[in-house]
Amino acid sequence: MVSSILQRTYEILEGTTNDKLAKGFQIFIISLISVNVLVVIIETEESVLDEYGYFFTPFEVFSIIVFTGEYAGRLIVCKLNPKYQNKKFALLRLVFSPMMLVDLAAILPFFLPFIVTDVRFIRIIRLLRLFRLFKLARYSEPMQTLGEVFKSKAGDLAVAFFILFIVLIFASSLMYHAEHQAQPEVFSSIPTSMWWGVITLTTIGYGDVYPITLAGKIIGAGVAILGIAVYAIPTGIMASAFTEELRRRRETENKKCPHCGKDITGI
Amino acid sequence: MVSSILQRTYEILEGTTNDKLAKGFQIFIISLISVNVLVVIIETEESVLDEYGYFFTPFEVFSIIVFTGEYAGRLIVCKLNPKYQNKKFALLRLVFSPMMLVDLAAILPFFLPFIVTDVRFIRIIRLLRLFRLFKLARYSEPMQTLGEVFKSKAGDLAVAFFILFIVLIFASSLMYHAEHQAQPEVFSSIPTSMWWGVITLTTIGYGDVYPITLAGKIIGAGVAILGIAVYAIPTGIMASAFTEELRRRRETENKKCPHCGKDITGI
Amino acid sequence: MVSSILQRTYEILEGTTNDKLAKGFQIFIISLISVNVLVVIIETEESVLDEYGYFFTPFEVFSIIVFTGEYAGRLIVCKLNPKYQNKKFALLRLVFSPMMLVDLAAILPFFLPFIVTDVRFIRIIRLLRLFRLFKLARYSEPMQTLGEVFKSKAGDLAVAFFILFIVLIFASSLMYHAEHQAQPEVFSSIPTSMWWGVITLTTIGYGDVYPITLAGKIIGAGVAILGIAVYAIPTGIMASAFTEELRRRRETENKKCPHCGKDITGI
Amino acid sequence: MVSSILQRTYEILEGTTNDKLAKGFQIFIISLISVNVLVVIIETEESVLDEYGYFFTPFEVFSIIVFTGEYAGRLIVCKLNPKYQNKKFALLRLVFSPMMLVDLAAILPFFLPFIVTDVRFIRIIRLLRLFRLFKLARYSEPMQTLGEVFKSKAGDLAVAFFILFIVLIFASSLMYHAEHQAQPEVFSSIPTSMWWGVITLTTIGYGDVYPITLAGKIIGAGVAILGIAVYAIPTGIMASAFTEELRRRRETENKKCPHCGKDITGI
Repeated sequence: MVSSILQRTYEILEGTTNDKLAKGFQIFIISLISVNVLVVIIETEESVLDEYGYFFTPFEVFSIIVFTGEYAGRLIVCKLNPKYQNKKFALLRLVFSPMMLVDLAAILPFFLPFIVTDVRFIRIIRLLRLFRLFKLARYSEPMQTLGEVFKSKAGDLAVAFFILFIVLIFASSLMYHAEHQAQPEVFSSIPTSMWWGVITLTTIGYGDVYPITLAGKIIGAGVAILGIAVYAIPTGIMASAFTEELRRRRETENKKCPHCGKDITGI
Repeated sequence: MVSSILQRTYEILEGTTNDKLAKGFQIFIISLISVNVLVVIIETEESVLDEYGYFFTPFEVFSIIVFTGEYAGRLIVCKLNPKYQNKKFALLRLVFSPMMLVDLAAILPFFLPFIVTDVRFIRIIRLLRLFRLFKLARYSEPMQTLGEVFKSKAGDLAVAFFILFIVLIFASSLMYHAEHQAQPEVFSSIPTSMWWGVITLTTIGYGDVYPITLAGKIIGAGVAILGIAVYAIPTGIMASAFTEELRRRRETENKKCPHCGKDITGI
Repeated sequence: MVSSILQRTYEILEGTTNDKLAKGFQIFIISLISVNVLVVIIETEESVLDEYGYFFTPFEVFSIIVFTGEYAGRLIVCKLNPKYQNKKFALLRLVFSPMMLVDLAAILPFFLPFIVTDVRFIRIIRLLRLFRLFKLARYSEPMQTLGEVFKSKAGDLAVAFFILFIVLIFASSLMYHAEHQAQPEVFSSIPTSMWWGVITLTTIGYGDVYPITLAGKIIGAGVAILGIAVYAIPTGIMASAFTEELRRRRETENKKCPHCGKDITGI
Repeated sequence: MVSSILQRTYEILEGTTNDKLAKGFQIFIISLISVNVLVVIIETEESVLDEYGYFFTPFEVFSIIVFTGEYAGRLIVCKLNPKYQNKKFALLRLVFSPMMLVDLAAILPFFLPFIVTDVRFIRIIRLLRLFRLFKLARYSEPMQTLGEVFKSKAGDLAVAFFILFIVLIFASSLMYHAEHQAQPEVFSSIPTSMWWGVITLTTIGYGDVYPITLAGKIIGAGVAILGIAVYAIPTGIMASAFTEELRRRRETENKKCPHCGKDITGI
């Protein structure tokens, strides 16, 4: 009997079955996460806090009970997961798997204040509740695909960001030397000028910092044009990654000639 | 005789023939839609309203008569459409087809004020006249192709927007906590900070809201760089979709099995 | 003798030979165009005009003589161009070819003021001298390739711009109704609001116009996110066009198996 | 004995072995470069300079000793490099190789002030220390790949930038004529208006310069929409380059002629 309950719990938690209870549980957890994130966001709005504040604490307690129960459940049915069966330190491996760490991060913000009592620390911990959003990743297949696309291009993207970083350092240093005298408050040092550099290279351009001298404007124009590469390189990398992904899927489909029955995969 | 008139009406409305009358009717409808949209736009310019205002009401009545006639015509010749022939509830299927709903939305704004008389409601309804623009989609083939490209990538694009959404929530929450004390008016709550988040992640950067503290600027710089992905991912997806579309068209051109020599086009 | 001079002129003007005189003439024309454009630009700088102004008129006269001579030369050697040989109205065809129209536009601004004497008109005509830039297109092969890439995608790009146009109309109309009461000066009419629409959809965001009401900010955020598509669609189209271009070049290279000598093009 | 020391030095400097000493030396040089760049940046921050200023000069001396030693070492072991073996002017070829020029640029800023003593010149030279960043390129393989991708597309990218340049000239000239009278200070000449042109075409939009007249806004809107191409073209080029790069890698994997079965990889 116990074993059959464990088996059922495992199926529901991991969504390996398609019955109504498993589906219902998934929808319930997804809704609970969404409402939790919504609460974190709107409780900073004073008018909302004044009117509905009394509701937030019991809701938090309820959420924590559900999420803790879910976490504990996953630990208990660990042995039924074929991924961890017959392995040493199965429980430890499970605890340190990425998704379980996310699940832990989702409940920890509630329990930590009982141990640490520094007010500032608690405020940051409250923000950690946002990590519950990542629990949603478990339920999205294309998200995991995107993750793999990113992983396969990690090296190229790292180079793209390294180039962005080098351009940023040069742009900010040049601009500092060009504008420091004209605007000593705004371009007070190279680290300060990097704020201008980032906002310009990403083409945001708030308008709080911009060059006013001729030299500064010429450097700024050059940086602006170089900034086109900041978008062109990562976008080109992503485009080739998605095209490659499509090609791979198509090629592994396994095609046969309908006339003679022979394999024509990849032709 | 009646049946031949119906047949002719069907041909003209659906553009299945290429004779002068059908072409002329199409050009007339397209022009009428364009002028209608133009009127909606320029009638908000006071100087135009003062001078040409007397012309707008009769023009609206004329347009409604034409569009209503066109709508009625399509309903009447419904039976001649091979798509709906010999089907149950043919008329109902036609009425709820996307293009017919657009056609209905194009004439409804005129008739609704006779039923509802709330002034506010009427103002919003007047705006609905803009939906007449979508009537143009009927006449554009590449538009429909683009629609299909979008549809085939709906899943990937949804993930892209979900990631944008997650980044937005984190960015706005972090920025709220970093800047709330320094600019309590501007970053008054997380929902308010989301305005900053959207305008920064989309690289618009109006300059009405931006961080002024060191922590805020560091978070802002990080968000700005992450924002590159906001463009790189959807653009990469679209690029692969268009490349795939091209490949598919090329592939359906003609192809033979190298083993038996028979046609395997499109397999 | 005359025929040999004509032949030589034709070779030099069309660059069909590679001897020093032809090369030298090309470099001379390209330099002259560049200096001409430079003059148009810097003569608006008052300090430059004061100091070097006396030089500009003779330089303009010299340029016109050269360009007119080049234009006349091309007309005279028309018969030697195999493209126009043995064709009716050869001269007329040549005069109305795109590059010859550009050449005409390059010299016309000088002669028109002798006919028309309205000062305003002359000022606009002076600006037409910038069209001399397009004369450079004659000497750039990759430019002509890019032109073809654009042409092959004209339909798709037109749809992309039509969608931009529709989004712009909707965004501006909605924003006008949301912000008109709060900022009657800024969002005074839909055409006026379209300035906001363009600057937002292209992610420029000067910061001279932005929504301040809650409804306006929500609409603005939606438009900003839609604006991502404004870049993703044309970029995706261009990416697929360039990929296709590469593939076509590769495929037409004609490859052979080095072992058996048979054709393996496209395998 | 000497030859074995030289051999060992060569191996460590070029990283041709994988032993601990070579790895350690690489990490040491990379760290030293990073700290050097960091110092150049943060020494402009006054509070940092006040507190840690005494540390910067000895650190610079230490860095110069290491970098000069490294440079000298590379010169000494020149003969062991197979690339330069048995070649005339081996040392000269090495000195003028790109990476050795970077290495020289990294140490020169220290020695130059002993020769030139103009203060202004020295300040610019101090900035040259940032070139040490490029020494890192030696240790990054994907960086060199990206360099090749860029090189293979140099022609197309040059055209893209030439188009940007032409659009910039036209946009700025038109805007100058449209706005000069309304904002004589801001759009004082075409070269001045080009600052507006660059900031608009790259979609940065600081908001320090923007059109206020109707004509100016219409031109500005047109330029903004044309500006989409400024991103779409280079991004499309990069996307096709990365896709091509992937295809080439895949193709060199292994391939056989379908006629004779022999290897045709990479043909």
